[in-house]
Amino acid sequence: MTEQKGLKIAVIGGGSSYTPELVEGFIRYHDSLPVRELWLVDIEPGLWKLNIVGELAKRMVERSGLPIEVHLTTDRRAAIAGADFVSTQMRVGMLEARGQDEAIPLKYDVIGQETTGPGGMMKALRTIPVLLDICRDIEELAPDAWLLNFTNPAGMVTEAIRKHSKVKSIGLCNAPIGLLKWLAGKYDTTTDRVYAEFVGLNHLHWVSRVTVDGIDRLPELVRGEDSFSAKNVSGSDWDPAFISGLNALPSYYLKYFYMTDAMLADQKAAFEKDGNRAEVVKRVEKELFELYQDPELKEKPKQLEQRGGAYYSEAAVNLMRSLHNGTGDVQTLNVPNNGILPFLPDDACIEVNCVVTSGGPIPLQLTAVPAPSIGLIQAVKTYESLAIEAAISGDRSIALQALAHHPLVPSVSVAKAMLDEMLEANRAYLPKFFEN
Amino acid sequence: MTEQKGLKIAVIGGGSSYTPELVEGFIRYHDSLPVRELWLVDIEPGLWKLNIVGELAKRMVERSGLPIEVHLTTDRRAAIAGADFVSTQMRVGMLEARGQDEAIPLKYDVIGQETTGPGGMMKALRTIPVLLDICRDIEELAPDAWLLNFTNPAGMVTEAIRKHSKVKSIGLCNAPIGLLKWLAGKYDTTTDRVYAEFVGLNHLHWVSRVTVDGIDRLPELVRGEDSFSAKNVSGSDWDPAFISGLNALPSYYLKYFYMTDAMLADQKAAFEKDGNRAEVVKRVEKELFELYQDPELKEKPKQLEQRGGAYYSEAAVNLMRSLHNGTGDVQTLNVPNNGILPFLPDDACIEVNCVVTSGGPIPLQLTAVPAPSIGLIQAVKTYESLAIEAAISGDRSIALQALAHHPLVPSVSVAKAMLDEMLEANRAYLPKFFEN
Amino acid sequence: MTEQKGLKIAVIGGGSSYTPELVEGFIRYHDSLPVRELWLVDIEPGLWKLNIVGELAKRMVERSGLPIEVHLTTDRRAAIAGADFVSTQMRVGMLEARGQDEAIPLKYDVIGQETTGPGGMMKALRTIPVLLDICRDIEELAPDAWLLNFTNPAGMVTEAIRKHSKVKSIGLCNAPIGLLKWLAGKYDTTTDRVYAEFVGLNHLHWVSRVTVDGIDRLPELVRGEDSFSAKNVSGSDWDPAFISGLNALPSYYLKYFYMTDAMLADQKAAFEKDGNRAEVVKRVEKELFELYQDPELKEKPKQLEQRGGAYYSEAAVNLMRSLHNGTGDVQTLNVPNNGILPFLPDDACIEVNCVVTSGGPIPLQLTAVPAPSIGLIQAVKTYESLAIEAAISGDRSIALQALAHHPLVPSVSVAKAMLDEMLEANRAYLPKFFEN
Amino acid sequence: MTEQKGLKIAVIGGGSSYTPELVEGFIRYHDSLPVRELWLVDIEPGLWKLNIVGELAKRMVERSGLPIEVHLTTDRRAAIAGADFVSTQMRVGMLEARGQDEAIPLKYDVIGQETTGPGGMMKALRTIPVLLDICRDIEELAPDAWLLNFTNPAGMVTEAIRKHSKVKSIGLCNAPIGLLKWLAGKYDTTTDRVYAEFVGLNHLHWVSRVTVDGIDRLPELVRGEDSFSAKNVSGSDWDPAFISGLNALPSYYLKYFYMTDAMLADQKAAFEKDGNRAEVVKRVEKELFELYQDPELKEKPKQLEQRGGAYYSEAAVNLMRSLHNGTGDVQTLNVPNNGILPFLPDDACIEVNCVVTSGGPIPLQLTAVPAPSIGLIQAVKTYESLAIEAAISGDRSIALQALAHHPLVPSVSVAKAMLDEMLEANRAYLPKFFEN
Repeated sequence: MTEQKGLKIAVIGGGSSYTPELVEGFIRYHDSLPVRELWLVDIEPGLWKLNIVGELAKRMVERSGLPIEVHLTTDRRAAIAGADFVSTQMRVGMLEARGQDEAIPLKYDVIGQETTGPGGMMKALRTIPVLLDICRDIEELAPDAWLLNFTNPAGMVTEAIRKHSKVKSIGLCNAPIGLLKWLAGKYDTTTDRVYAEFVGLNHLHWVSRVTVDGIDRLPELVRGEDSFSAKNVSGSDWDPAFISGLNALPSYYLKYFYMTDAMLADQKAAFEKDGNRAEVVKRVEKELFELYQDPELKEKPKQLEQRGGAYYSEAAVNLMRSLHNGTGDVQTLNVPNNGILPFLPDDACIEVNCVVTSGGPIPLQLTAVPAPSIGLIQAVKTYESLAIEAAISGDRSIALQALAHHPLVPSVSVAKAMLDEMLEANRAYLPKFFEN
Repeated sequence: MTEQKGLKIAVIGGGSSYTPELVEGFIRYHDSLPVRELWLVDIEPGLWKLNIVGELAKRMVERSGLPIEVHLTTDRRAAIAGADFVSTQMRVGMLEARGQDEAIPLKYDVIGQETTGPGGMMKALRTIPVLLDICRDIEELAPDAWLLNFTNPAGMVTEAIRKHSKVKSIGLCNAPIGLLKWLAGKYDTTTDRVYAEFVGLNHLHWVSRVTVDGIDRLPELVRGEDSFSAKNVSGSDWDPAFISGLNALPSYYLKYFYMTDAMLADQKAAFEKDGNRAEVVKRVEKELFELYQDPELKEKPKQLEQRGGAYYSEAAVNLMRSLHNGTGDVQTLNVPNNGILPFLPDDACIEVNCVVTSGGPIPLQLTAVPAPSIGLIQAVKTYESLAIEAAISGDRSIALQALAHHPLVPSVSVAKAMLDEMLEANRAYLPKFFEN
Repeated sequence: MTEQKGLKIAVIGGGSSYTPELVEGFIRYHDSLPVRELWLVDIEPGLWKLNIVGELAKRMVERSGLPIEVHLTTDRRAAIAGADFVSTQMRVGMLEARGQDEAIPLKYDVIGQETTGPGGMMKALRTIPVLLDICRDIEELAPDAWLLNFTNPAGMVTEAIRKHSKVKSIGLCNAPIGLLKWLAGKYDTTTDRVYAEFVGLNHLHWVSRVTVDGIDRLPELVRGEDSFSAKNVSGSDWDPAFISGLNALPSYYLKYFYMTDAMLADQKAAFEKDGNRAEVVKRVEKELFELYQDPELKEKPKQLEQRGGAYYSEAAVNLMRSLHNGTGDVQTLNVPNNGILPFLPDDACIEVNCVVTSGGPIPLQLTAVPAPSIGLIQAVKTYESLAIEAAISGDRSIALQALAHHPLVPSVSVAKAMLDEMLEANRAYLPKFFEN
Repeated sequence: MTEQKGLKIAVIGGGSSYTPELVEGFIRYHDSLPVRELWLVDIEPGLWKLNIVGELAKRMVERSGLPIEVHLTTDRRAAIAGADFVSTQMRVGMLEARGQDEAIPLKYDVIGQETTGPGGMMKALRTIPVLLDICRDIEELAPDAWLLNFTNPAGMVTEAIRKHSKVKSIGLCNAPIGLLKWLAGKYDTTTDRVYAEFVGLNHLHWVSRVTVDGIDRLPELVRGEDSFSAKNVSGSDWDPAFISGLNALPSYYLKYFYMTDAMLADQKAAFEKDGNRAEVVKRVEKELFELYQDPELKEKPKQLEQRGGAYYSEAAVNLMRSLHNGTGDVQTLNVPNNGILPFLPDDACIEVNCVVTSGGPIPLQLTAVPAPSIGLIQAVKTYESLAIEAAISGDRSIALQALAHHPLVPSVSVAKAMLDEMLEANRAYLPKFFEN
């Protein structure tokens, strides 16, 4: 760590509408995370966004009076060289591709979602090769850097990086911190007084222990009267009898698995009404960028919080601070399993509580794995590791195995037809699949 | 073993139409399996069948000239006392209950089958408590006996016995021996020249290695041009591209998972046309018992082979002979996992190749577990162990967890409605579920 | 937790000379650990010590002005009833038995030590049945209490409790906190800025990661120039070339294994000169109790720190505070393995870093297990689990297996002769071994 | 397999005095193992032995009338090219080096033995690099060949090959077949009627189950009244009380661990009387080669059986036959662990019963691992894997770790002094250790 001269941070996908959150975090926590250089990097087609958001970042920094240099660039290697932290928040194929990820499965009566199910697989196939390219640069130009990966599907992407590069990578999601905030609010305390045990994978976790201020709150929480959710996942409420038998709080992403029929009906209705969620997000983004262009705007606008990715920045800045200072606090991260879930391979990426030391996150043993969760975790991990293999190899046969074994896909024949259509729709982003 | 005075065998469910097969096996292999007493035991409502099939057994033995005593009884304890082998082939609730197992799920657009899916769970809930009662008798009256369990769902029932009794139990199925016979026929050799590695669970296995006469035949077999199936499972042919990517031969029972949509459509069409399969079986049984009544019939009638349970007897007699003589040959059996599939608990029952010694079967390490199979094996085992727990406890909440986590059940709400209906329909056989 | 009315603490072996340290801790940290009742309990033969140390405790509390009631009693059940924490620091057989534990092995040219080797086994055989008796009381009278076990051999005793009772027990040792203090002193910082990864068992650990203020200090520490030790373990310095190859810091107790020849020679020389260490400790204790009797003494005397058990009290009070408040800090504790060391059984007790929550300690994954340590850890754990089995069963044959498989015992014949002599010498404390 | 034109076999170290045994086996079992070409290969200094033994082989073949071609060569690559089986029985450094392996440790009061202890480590350091060179040739010239490795320490050498080459290698020892023969003799039956479960490593196994003709014979065998041993391991008899508590039959090599003091005394006395065992063997070899030179000798001479390696040939030919024919019989072999002993790494080489198929040996699950054996197995495996790493890297620091962690070495300081002397004595065979 280059503490004395301050830290260098590279943000890949820096033109994202989320960037002002990150900048706000760097400003607020400058004492414990002394950022000196902030490099926002994006690709050519995103340059206009990078410039808008970058200028806002500069105004925010200027207003703070802190000695942070903001660099805007399309030169990824320059941004990465010598960085202490690299953060990724990009979207290969942009919102257009997301739209297809969500729309195509619906044609086959299958859940259409950008991280879960066939849509998530397409996103993984597009994203993993690009991330691994970035990792090649990090290996060469910043071998000691930590890569904080927000890019979805974050668990699969992190697993791919861990398996196929030497980069020190950690996957991050805002769902765990969101639950802690919800619990802290519910019990009128602060998140550091809440201990919640997360079991499972990214976007596929169960919370099996909750203590707040030293008191076990799980028994009342599994009565199922209210539950934590997020703006980007709708759907019905949980069946209290089911939650009570489960004796754990399922992530709201688990509605795709536990209420597949109702969620699919919702998605189809919403699609007919509003088009897919990618379209909605596009409109929100458009409005945000209009706001960002206002030269008088010198702070993160309130409207950003409605964007769905609440706490992303907080999660990222918290992790960087703890790695930098070796604070030893507990955070929920995506890291290699190494025996924590004994039924998964050591190199499978899981979402788990970790003590964050300066040497990296150290996972905590799980004390209460819900018995019913095991099958679904294994089934999704089986799909995930096949999908990663497909992304790396560009092998359509492996991709078929991945999709056919996804719990949300009803048969091999549906998998095959859907895969063909999705690969074709993503042809521009999948050179390996169309090499021959 | 009471070798000198000959062996005592107790067959629970001795009135089954399969019994003549078993008797034929005992006669044929009397040299290596010197049966002295054969006790056929059944319950009151099955007494008429026991008498018919028992008289046929007596005629078969008489014709053979062998010193085998055939006893017909409803006194289970007398049959078990001092037995060397106990074999079970009963059906709690008889074909009427099977009819409901198959029919009710179809109402919910879910596969209706007697061993796989919700139907199999109902069968397990009815059967496990009865089998454990039998085990109490064996513990007391024949603690050294081997219990050979054919009663379906054989894997779950065997796991329940291993977890909840001290009886030395082995689960048996005719599917593995059927595949070996099919391969031997295909390559014009004998089954002892075929080595096939079975991976998975009862009615949920993949064959991942096949050598015939020392030659690796898997590469040509996974081209998928033809495949082994059984009369009781219909369905379309496998997609060659899928089988080739899988690089293993899936059990025909896996069609319920890999072709769920087509299989469901088939089942619904067949149901509309012929009523459920239980009805078909009833008609076959009726015809068989009419044949058996013929006092001139002194051997197993040819028609029995069409019954669907081909090789059941051969599997049973082979196993008894190998246990009795410690032959050290390889058989595919349902036994506790103990690390063979490292992702499953030690006490999970799996279907695996074993060397059969006089001390019992010893599983062989697996050399090629198909990566795509892992998720489905774990998912079904998760359901199975929950269902066993429900059967033991009579806890409806655990039964809901079991059913909701079955890969063939589309949602918690479907699970709940279907469970309610199925429990109600089986009320007479599920005293624990209706105690309060 | 009975927070509102304050906590009740029972100290078994309350007449120990260490008690003033504990009392000082309760006074200093009363804010975060609101002790209301402190019950010091001892057996009849220790009553005179209990009275002396108990009166000192009362004077210390009085001086503090805090609302802590100090109870002195020989009625263990009264002390335990309703306790929040039970702490044990007793010595079955007192120093006389320790003397024999140390002396007898030396006759056979084997290390004589009270926790490591044959001496530790005898201590375990005497202690485990007594501790399990105490656990019966806790199960009945304070089922929610945490049992903090300092009684040596702390790892084996804790494992025995976890295997044979339902008491929530944690084993504690002062060696880990001692190392942290030594590192903090060396690098001029505070212990919360030190992260040291402990790998292994109680009195058999290796430290394989050390970061101080975020900087990796292992490389310089394994140069072996200086090392942490304790007053009660003498012996030569480590060979720098060996430590460097090991790439970890071995506990000073490991000198018994790595320098067996030199340590044995030391012990024999010291024994000839001073008699055994038990005698030395007796003299120190005598002086301490003379001090404690002084009615003007109202605080922990400085001389106590030379007693060898530095930081015991700090370790105990820290743990109680963290359990009471769910602080989530990291402490090094003796807890069941549950997969942390994948080569040990789940129920083996290990010494490992844990996050302390109000629900108990949660072990952290190990990131760097030294390859050479694995054999010795397994060998000692094999001995430990056999010795526990012997202590529970009183089976001399199992005791022989335990001792014969201890790495410090050179042969079965030495094990046998030594065991006979040690059992005879401890006959009064081993009723089960002499029942028949 | 090149069945039609017959098999090609390459024997590395073909000039060994054991070769006539092997040749006799090829002749006797030609029906099931149709050898067409037998290539005996040796190095220049062994050429005179190769010629003597090779001519005897030719005479033996001629007398048999079988179409086997015997080739004698120092061109290893020619011998290996296209071979179906490669067998190794060489001795790097010849008997001179063995003499030092046995003599040097005795100077330090440590067991001096060619496979167990420091002597075995030196043999491993000399042998592994040479074997890996051979493997490079096999990878290139006979990639489908099976390598049958008899070269001691066979377990370590096989593990090194499995870890550092792609050659399909199996380690073989005559001790298991020797025990089966002894049991068959004792119970007046044939070895195929004996099932013995071997647990552990090469030269470090326990037999924990014995059934003969279907009857459990362990209870009477562990009474310890007589036991199986071999000519090359002397030592006292087992203590019956110890064997009974162990409830398993320890390999006679375990006397080095369980009776270290007595075995060391024996070795020292024998050394003073006869010089080391290498000298004895030299004299035996000299006599054998004089016999072999007799042109009238056309069969394996009786005297060879006294050589200590009884059944080596039988073990080798049995294995080749079973691999060639896929017989599916059970043999005790040295293969990768892959979960059989769950406390060892997957790639650790263990000695275990296997079903031999044409695809290779498939290990059988262990049903009764003796609890006391676990520590010693792990301790020796820890040493073995470090020694393998030292052999590959030529790193003296790792070699010190290996030796210092060997259970028979009393301290780091002894390890260091002994290592220095042994490396120096083997300088000619350890180029990597003296590169700088």
